[in-house]
Amino acid sequence: MKKLINDPATVLADSLVGVAAAHPELRVDHENRIVYRGTPTRAGKVAIVSGGGSGHEPLHGGFVGLGMLDAAISGEVFTSPTPDQVEAATKGADGGAGVLHIVKNYTGDVMNFEMAAELSEGVNVETVVTNDDVAVEDSTWTAGRRGVGVTVLLEKIVGAAAEEGLDLQAVAALARRVNDSGRSMGMALTSCTVPAAGKPTFEIPDDMMEMGVGIHGEPGRHRVPMAAASSVAEQLVAPILADLDFTGGPNIVMLNGMGGTPLIELYLMFGEVKKLLDAAGVEVARTLVGNYITSLDMAGCSVTILKADDEILKFWDAPVNTPGLRWGI
Amino acid sequence: MKKLINDPATVLADSLVGVAAAHPELRVDHENRIVYRGTPTRAGKVAIVSGGGSGHEPLHGGFVGLGMLDAAISGEVFTSPTPDQVEAATKGADGGAGVLHIVKNYTGDVMNFEMAAELSEGVNVETVVTNDDVAVEDSTWTAGRRGVGVTVLLEKIVGAAAEEGLDLQAVAALARRVNDSGRSMGMALTSCTVPAAGKPTFEIPDDMMEMGVGIHGEPGRHRVPMAAASSVAEQLVAPILADLDFTGGPNIVMLNGMGGTPLIELYLMFGEVKKLLDAAGVEVARTLVGNYITSLDMAGCSVTILKADDEILKFWDAPVNTPGLRWGI
Repeated sequence: MKKLINDPATVLADSLVGVAAAHPELRVDHENRIVYRGTPTRAGKVAIVSGGGSGHEPLHGGFVGLGMLDAAISGEVFTSPTPDQVEAATKGADGGAGVLHIVKNYTGDVMNFEMAAELSEGVNVETVVTNDDVAVEDSTWTAGRRGVGVTVLLEKIVGAAAEEGLDLQAVAALARRVNDSGRSMGMALTSCTVPAAGKPTFEIPDDMMEMGVGIHGEPGRHRVPMAAASSVAEQLVAPILADLDFTGGPNIVMLNGMGGTPLIELYLMFGEVKKLLDAAGVEVARTLVGNYITSLDMAGCSVTILKADDEILKFWDAPVNTPGLRWGI
Repeated sequence: MKKLINDPATVLADSLVGVAAAHPELRVDHENRIVYRGTPTRAGKVAIVSGGGSGHEPLHGGFVGLGMLDAAISGEVFTSPTPDQVEAATKGADGGAGVLHIVKNYTGDVMNFEMAAELSEGVNVETVVTNDDVAVEDSTWTAGRRGVGVTVLLEKIVGAAAEEGLDLQAVAALARRVNDSGRSMGMALTSCTVPAAGKPTFEIPDDMMEMGVGIHGEPGRHRVPMAAASSVAEQLVAPILADLDFTGGPNIVMLNGMGGTPLIELYLMFGEVKKLLDAAGVEVARTLVGNYITSLDMAGCSVTILKADDEILKFWDAPVNTPGLRWGI
């Protein structure tokens, strides 16, 4: 295992020290592994809180800031944060107008956020569970589909809605609508290596790739021979388009890297995806290409398509000022 | 070789198709492999033009846009663009107030940009050659020090200066001052793999790392045993601080990823670097953590420190709107 770390046991804690040092505009609760905005949630604004296992950076800590999250909780690598951690973030972020929990559909996350919501007496909590991954119906760590790339787009969109002053019910309804409108699928060329494990999560031959891989290296749909980028794009896009009709309106399309794939390949993949969407009559109104929801050092990528409308595009275009996404400010 | 590509021969062309598809606000000259802003350089503004071999993305094409570059020319992977390409970009970007060429110090780049400047009759061209890498005094591809991370910071700073209306001489003088004020050093855990070669550029044992590596996988100062992140940080920071005095004023510090290293490790490394700078009395006024000047899929990182002052910080903070760096807009 070749990693820039001090000790597998302190990766998360040490990384949060770096986040605090690099971003004095944020506030890091090192004990509870929570990243907050530098200033408390303003009275009357719904607080947007998300979190999960670490190893997916910039998700979620890198999306804290104006126009996106109020707080993000990190569990150990690929491990759900505890109910106590989530409770602390929920109470810490609440500005009196309630808190939206954005939870990726993994059993541990769903359970611990639910317990935290119950523990957070006096705070109104609504929850959206993202489950946009079309690859598998149930998986190693989920009942139902896994929550992946749509989570990034959803955090941006509902973050802007909360900033504009929508109340908790309206923000939660928008969040569920966004989740219902998005689909993703990913693939891996290589495994990731969890620091505490010290070896790759899975073995994969040099001439094979894993289609539909999960963001923790969980098995996908099937292993197939290495193929040209154009074929990889087709194998990712076809299942997404088969699952939901994206024609007839604008869409937001993300080509996401898994952490170990360079940008030159991600742009190349985006070009292939765009050709397929053009051919299918799917309008691409907004794009995002880069590493946004990663799997440590895994090489690979994922495609996310989100049906949009004027409201969703307005919130997408609204100002955002976070380490991972920044525009309009 | 596991890469998301169609054919090693078309990686650059295919990737530029993706850049054009993802960024309709930019204009891509596919024949000459030039990325321009969507609108021509406004009359009277100095045009900032850079380029070099591809494989270092987002450098340089990802830094085209308001407040940074007017045009970026891509050579094949790790190969200088030709004089003809650079000439086309120079003439294409000129708005009548002249063009600044920002060239990383590699023999092919320096020669081809120089020839292009001579070929670009009727265009006033000034050139800055960056040479901030303290690792080696001469290298595989250079006489003198290599140009690396400072190039990113310099493109941002002089881009803002040109936007503010400084004339060509003033922009060029600022560029040389920025280059003289910055130092970098990098390291690699793994080699990169050039698509056309199909195998890693160099072999390195599982228990060793290359300190002072170049951004094309050129040899650095020495190979040393794998060590904790705190030790890696010290081995990068000490040679930089030994080369230039960074005390007594504000500095901009970049912790850059080589392309295959995930953000959780880059932040962890930044935390270690910050501790060393604090101990050395080096003030960190601005920070940048992420993949900005990469080496394809190489795992590793580099540190860049730039002595700043009020003028440099003003230009650093000024609005920028590019795929790779965006704020204030």
